[in-house]
Amino acid sequence: MPETNNQQVRLASRPSGWVTPDNFEFTVEPVGEPAQGQVLVRNLLMSVDPYMRGRMNDVRSYVPPFRLGEVLQASVVGQVVASEYDGYAEGDYVTGMLGWENYSICDGRQLRKLTPGSEPLSWHLGILGMPGMTAYVGLMKIAEAKPGETVFVSAASGAVGSVVGQLAKLHGCRVVGSAGSDEKVALLKQEFGYDAGLNYKKSESLVRDIKSLCPKGIDVGFENVGGDIFEAVLWSMRDFGRIALCGMISNYNDAEPQPGPRGMMLIVGRRLTIRGFIVRDHPAECQEYVTKAAAWVKEGKLRYHETVAEGLENAPKAFIDMLKGGNVGKQIVKLADA
Amino acid sequence: MPETNNQQVRLASRPSGWVTPDNFEFTVEPVGEPAQGQVLVRNLLMSVDPYMRGRMNDVRSYVPPFRLGEVLQASVVGQVVASEYDGYAEGDYVTGMLGWENYSICDGRQLRKLTPGSEPLSWHLGILGMPGMTAYVGLMKIAEAKPGETVFVSAASGAVGSVVGQLAKLHGCRVVGSAGSDEKVALLKQEFGYDAGLNYKKSESLVRDIKSLCPKGIDVGFENVGGDIFEAVLWSMRDFGRIALCGMISNYNDAEPQPGPRGMMLIVGRRLTIRGFIVRDHPAECQEYVTKAAAWVKEGKLRYHETVAEGLENAPKAFIDMLKGGNVGKQIVKLADA
Repeated sequence: MPETNNQQVRLASRPSGWVTPDNFEFTVEPVGEPAQGQVLVRNLLMSVDPYMRGRMNDVRSYVPPFRLGEVLQASVVGQVVASEYDGYAEGDYVTGMLGWENYSICDGRQLRKLTPGSEPLSWHLGILGMPGMTAYVGLMKIAEAKPGETVFVSAASGAVGSVVGQLAKLHGCRVVGSAGSDEKVALLKQEFGYDAGLNYKKSESLVRDIKSLCPKGIDVGFENVGGDIFEAVLWSMRDFGRIALCGMISNYNDAEPQPGPRGMMLIVGRRLTIRGFIVRDHPAECQEYVTKAAAWVKEGKLRYHETVAEGLENAPKAFIDMLKGGNVGKQIVKLADA
Repeated sequence: MPETNNQQVRLASRPSGWVTPDNFEFTVEPVGEPAQGQVLVRNLLMSVDPYMRGRMNDVRSYVPPFRLGEVLQASVVGQVVASEYDGYAEGDYVTGMLGWENYSICDGRQLRKLTPGSEPLSWHLGILGMPGMTAYVGLMKIAEAKPGETVFVSAASGAVGSVVGQLAKLHGCRVVGSAGSDEKVALLKQEFGYDAGLNYKKSESLVRDIKSLCPKGIDVGFENVGGDIFEAVLWSMRDFGRIALCGMISNYNDAEPQPGPRGMMLIVGRRLTIRGFIVRDHPAECQEYVTKAAAWVKEGKLRYHETVAEGLENAPKAFIDMLKGGNVGKQIVKLADA
């Protein structure tokens, strides 16, 4: 039997600039009951991701903005408590876009069933979930990385970047990444197989440092950050290079759109391609990836780090810390034990 | 018999900012004689093009910089005076990358023979030459324009833009362009078949004006200008749109690289592709284009405007005027009669 109370986190106000705790509001409601076609899920783990920052603004984007006063959404792994939808039964593990709350009720079609193996359940929000798929789609389909090429990844130790690096190595590329602390840079090489790493916060010249780590230049940029590092990557690209634009976390808290990198004429001179993408446009490659990744994880070929915050009450802080780079690997919030 | 004197224009100094007449130096040398494998060409027409501005700087680019004190280079149409190369004979019309001068001597392999029809000889420097090829490659191969799509062209009445518009119409697209005077905008519709045109110098909001001319947004941007218009195009793109980056003439005279457009995150949200290109990387498509274009010109399906300056002594002024938008269509310098 579930508890009767469902704690929830709602959007209290839209941030201007950095997100602050008072942008969030906690509420408690009774746990409801699923109607025909619906499923009641006890949420065990939830993901906080950079793209959520965009949804807190009231602007047209590829996902609709969060609405004021409503429960925030997140990717969740949970367990079915009660099902009025054929195909799900009590106890099933599921994942889907649910709420920042202890219990969610949703249409059964919004869920995907998990068959957990020996890996931690939380990995289905990271290396076996959307961040892993994003790494695969961006590297292989959008940037079309080829064996022998040099790949540069920003936010390289993050949920997406740490997978990009490992996939690129498995693919036969040389991989260099940037991160925001010496601890993270050490992880790049020790854990994620990067050939070299760069602490951008200590760099006096990003272009010069990239040059020394990528003497032949960059063939493939996997861009998660934007700002100065994006500009330095652009200036370091080889002829016919490709930049997969996945996100620009350095800009998400700016109240006004920031200028793009200087030197856009390099795109012409070096015949570069810059391509943005969203993982959900590529379901076939996502499925392909999940199958491959499950095997790689089992064989120990893919490694994974996460930072876990405990309890829904810490979700806003975990989100804010993640936006500031406080996490290593994927930022997860644990809501309950299985 | 040629005259014995060859007037030449050399790079006297590198411009910082706008090009000025004192960046050029006139010299006179005797006309030489071709050695084995070489051809002596009497230059009849020469082209001044935006990309030349980049070559006046001493920076790495896709073409090597002009060297101080040397004769400047240009695409030329000329007539063979004397040939020591098999395959060319006196009187042949040829085109190639020769000099800002009345006579050039070059390796015969650098030339392409012309078989002029009823079209003016100068068209081989424009609609039947590099600018036309650039329009075709950018629109069809780089941006992959599809029938029914909306195409937006900046510098739309220029040497490249005027061809892009006509090719896009022949391909079944809706075409809108921007130019810098009412006279040019009128030409877009009356001569080049554009569906609508925009005088960017009179616009109070480029985004709003583009919105009114392209209510569904832009599928394909053909970017020749950079700066504000590039940003407005970026903001007006539809999901999965492509921007072929051909040049950024608005930046060529800046002493420092300028910031890119604001709102680069739109590239992610709308899944855009921005791709730079250089026409000479695509010889097969160039050949394909020249064959098609010769037929279209004959059938009256492609129209063409040019601005002709008279005499080598006016070449620097023609180049400077072109950079400031003084020309309509292709800027040519006529050096001599055939």
